[in-house]
Amino acid sequence: MSRGRFITLEGGEGVGKTTNLAFIKDYLHQHGIPVIVTREPGGTGLAEKIRHLLLDKDSEAVSEHAELLLIFAARAQHIKHVIEPALARGIWVLCDRFTDATYAYQGGGRSMRNSTIEWLENLVQGNLRPDLTVLLDAPVEIGIERARARGFFDRFEAENISFFEHVRRAYLLQAELNPERIKIIKANQPLVDVQREIINIIGAFLR
Amino acid sequence: MSRGRFITLEGGEGVGKTTNLAFIKDYLHQHGIPVIVTREPGGTGLAEKIRHLLLDKDSEAVSEHAELLLIFAARAQHIKHVIEPALARGIWVLCDRFTDATYAYQGGGRSMRNSTIEWLENLVQGNLRPDLTVLLDAPVEIGIERARARGFFDRFEAENISFFEHVRRAYLLQAELNPERIKIIKANQPLVDVQREIINIIGAFLR
Repeated sequence: MSRGRFITLEGGEGVGKTTNLAFIKDYLHQHGIPVIVTREPGGTGLAEKIRHLLLDKDSEAVSEHAELLLIFAARAQHIKHVIEPALARGIWVLCDRFTDATYAYQGGGRSMRNSTIEWLENLVQGNLRPDLTVLLDAPVEIGIERARARGFFDRFEAENISFFEHVRRAYLLQAELNPERIKIIKANQPLVDVQREIINIIGAFLR
Repeated sequence: MSRGRFITLEGGEGVGKTTNLAFIKDYLHQHGIPVIVTREPGGTGLAEKIRHLLLDKDSEAVSEHAELLLIFAARAQHIKHVIEPALARGIWVLCDRFTDATYAYQGGGRSMRNSTIEWLENLVQGNLRPDLTVLLDAPVEIGIERARARGFFDRFEAENISFFEHVRRAYLLQAELNPERIKIIKANQPLVDVQREIINIIGAFLR
């Protein structure tokens, strides 16, 4: 049995990750591919508790180092208990955000050094990297408007415009550095066009 | 106003840390030194929540990387919100365990590389190191017997003898590597003798 493939979906606030995650899952199912859908930070009982600590906007100010280390602690659990066991059994893993989000939010948004993130990435992931990453990209104002319309803000969503500009720029830089793996889709076009591009990308990946 | 001093108390299970922490605090008070007592992992609201995740023996198996990163995440919060602000205001900090415990438990007990711990220590602590560390040392069987007598076991206290032998050996190695900072006291002697040695050490430190 061949190893499963690891696909991640990335993007800032309000770019349509939830809708398109379900769309990709259905598309893979239609092609007879066994897949689990999971998310970061989270994906295990302990990792979801860590997620809660990270997103709780009523908690004490979380230091930048604590935030970064909590994210990679959750990631270590997620990899060990969910991602690696699935891939080893030939099951594909479709994940809502992964380490590109750390480069975007903690690297771009919080100005943590990329070399620090890279060191932790190597510690926790070893050789594990996504096989394919779909990056949904939209101008920051559009995404924030959509996120606001949902009416609920966690600690990250409560950040200001400039934070999200840095996040977006860092995501695009990740794509530039990893052109084979990361495929950008403009998220500020009609959903049907976004999903046509998704089909093209996943279809090419399946061949 | 001069900066406060940072004193840590270290040792394995059942060596009498709690009793002697209170003793050191009282001794400092008697000498007119303003001091706060705190502990690791913990010391802030968020760090105590992380402590709970770490010690909960009913939770899913915590991966070694997750454990190490959670400990340093809690430490980052503790330093930023408690230790550094106190030291900066001239208040002394007396802490029940600190990074030597990470070298002992995660390095010695879990066989994590010291270079990994050292990298995280530099990331999270910058130049912050304890000014003085008292290491209470006893043969493992004695400490475990005392801890068992308390009748409650967390996830670490439920480990086996060989784990604690490695912890003890790693603590002693830390003392060997940092002879100026770390003072060893034999904990398997009458409490009055332990505390006489504490007075000698702290007294010399005050002069």
